[in-house]
This record gives sequence, structure tokens and C-alpha cells, in this order.
Amino acid sequence: MKSNSEATRLRFYISNTDKFRHTLLSETLVFAAKRYGLAGATVTKGCMGYGSSSVIHSAKFWEITEKLPVIVEMVDEPTKIEQFVNIILPWFDKIPTGCLVTAEKVQVVLFKQGMKKKFF
Amino acid sequence: MKSNSEATRLRFYISNTDKFRHTLLSETLVFAAKRYGLAGATVTKGCMGYGSSSVIHSAKFWEITEKLPVIVEMVDEPTKIEQFVNIILPWFDKIPTGCLVTAEKVQVVLFKQGMKKKFF
Amino acid sequence: MKSNSEATRLRFYISNTDKFRHTLLSETLVFAAKRYGLAGATVTKGCMGYGSSSVIHSAKFWEITEKLPVIVEMVDEPTKIEQFVNIILPWFDKIPTGCLVTAEKVQVVLFKQGMKKKFF
Repeated sequence: MKSNSEATRLRFYISNTDKFRHTLLSETLVFAAKRYGLAGATVTKGCMGYGSSSVIHSAKFWEITEKLPVIVEMVDEPTKIEQFVNIILPWFDKIPTGCLVTAEKVQVVLFKQGMKKKFF
Repeated sequence: MKSNSEATRLRFYISNTDKFRHTLLSETLVFAAKRYGLAGATVTKGCMGYGSSSVIHSAKFWEITEKLPVIVEMVDEPTKIEQFVNIILPWFDKIPTGCLVTAEKVQVVLFKQGMKKKFF
Repeated sequence: MKSNSEATRLRFYISNTDKFRHTLLSETLVFAAKRYGLAGATVTKGCMGYGSSSVIHSAKFWEITEKLPVIVEMVDEPTKIEQFVNIILPWFDKIPTGCLVTAEKVQVVLFKQGMKKKFF
């Protein structure tokens, strides 16, 4: 990915309780993105929400297992994102929970690689 | 909402102290979205920010009432979002606090309904 | 910025450990946006992620210095955002850490200034 190019942002609207093969789905997605070489991934936890399974969950309500919305966000070149989507979409067929995946075009204003630290 | 269709994402930039008729505005928006049948809503809390009322608030500063930015996000079909906006925009006239509402087109890569759990 | 106009959303994908001249980069960006007169800025902390420096960090892992993704988001008129970007992009050359800055067009559905409170 280069500065001043066009990129695609992928957003997964899932839940913090969603699992895929006994691992958290959000972690699985981040590790998959890393393995596939995507430029970056960010997981944000929401404090309230509902999805296609249609019950409102909130950090305010008392619940035995806290179920909160989680958004996983990835940005990279359109072709790379497309290939990544083709790889991981079949996974969602094996998961009983609902989810929403959106894609949108964004302009990359700056993409800068961090320098490798020598001692850590 | 279907996979591979176009959708609109609505984002409300409000504050965690904003209220509408003695309820938190963020909760009111989520419950309204649910009642109106939107596909999903997510509330994310920020840790620092400022808005149109123009004072910077941060989780780091000590404040008697913590005032932090909150983003409420909803995704659904363009027509449904438009109708929803027409319903709730008049509410904001009755609220003294400032706010920002943005809309953008997104591509729905996948929208999957969760299976109903039988025992919970 | 006016309701029913077009705006640009700027998103900085940085880390909570990134610093610029001994201050947190996220705070520096928010204070710069405020000084420059942008309509608003929001900082959201992620709970897991990796970026161009390519190591996955998570709130779950035990780390001496917690390094987590941070997203700084600003929305304003396209020309204002463009000028702001021209001012702050040179800063990033002086920072050793990597970062991603994206811009996208959004529709402003509502932008409302908060009323000034009289007693606080």
C-alpha cells in the first residue's frame, strides 16, 4: 500500500463472544490478516449494540457472559482485500452467529512503515 | 439487507452525557433503531475528543462528570436509513447539546442472520 | 460545516505509545485539530491490532508497556481537512513509528452547534 493511493477498508461487525474453532473470532481474523500480509488490523470493542441476532446488549446490563459488539477493521489495497475476503468468507458459513462485513473505498493519505527497533 | 448489496452507514458523534427525555441519547438511538427494525447498531466510546461545543475532554483529565465522545453506528439499506433519519432528526432540535451525524455508502460483503439459540 | 453538505473524514491509525515531541501523538493531533478549528475530533482506543511495524498487540497479552491501536477521527469540510493535512503530514516524517492516515467522503446529515452552558 502506498501513500496517495486508493484502498479498501473492510469492517467486520461481530461480537466478543463469537468463536471460530475454539478461538475468539476477532483474534482469528487479526491473525489471519497478519498471516495473509494485510497492512494492518484494528479491533475496537463497543459498549452497547445489537446485531442480526437481534437482542440489545450493553456493558451497563448485568449479564453472566458479557456479550458486546466488536468491530474488526482492516485497510489495504483493493485487490489484496478482495483475495482476503474470498479466503475467509467460507469460515462464516461454519459459525452459527450472525455478522456483518462491509467494504468501502478510502483514500490513503499517508502510509508509513515504522522503523525496526534494534533492542526490543 | 442482503450480501453484495449497497448500504448506508450512519454515524452519530455524540457524548456520553447527552440525554434525551432523561435517558442517555446513545441508548435512545439504539433502542429506536431496534424498534424501527434496522439491521444493527453499535455504540463505541472514545477516550478523548471535542465536538461542536468545543472543549477537549479526555479520560486522562480529572473531571467530576466524565464527558467523553460516543459514536453510534448503524448500517442498513439506504431507503431504510433515510426513513429512520427523518424520524429521529427532529429529536435533535429538542436537545441543547451539539452533535454530528454523517452518512456514507458502503458495500455489504456479507450479512448473515445468527441462528436462534434454543435454550437461552 | 453545514448540514446536508459533503465533508471529509480523516482517520489516523496510530498507537497509544506513539509520541511526538514528548507528548502523546493522539493528544497532539486532537489539540492541533482544535487549534486549527476543525469541527471535531474523536480518539478511540482499540483492544487488539497490528500495523505497519507488524507485531500483533492485544490487551489480553501481558506486556510491560501496553501498546494498543488508537484511531483518531476528524470530520470537516474537504478544503479545511486538506489544509490541515498539509500542516501535520510533515510531523510524521520526524516520528520513527509507522502510521496510516486515510480520508473518505461522507455526507453530513446534521451538524449542530451545542448551546453554551451558562453556569458551568
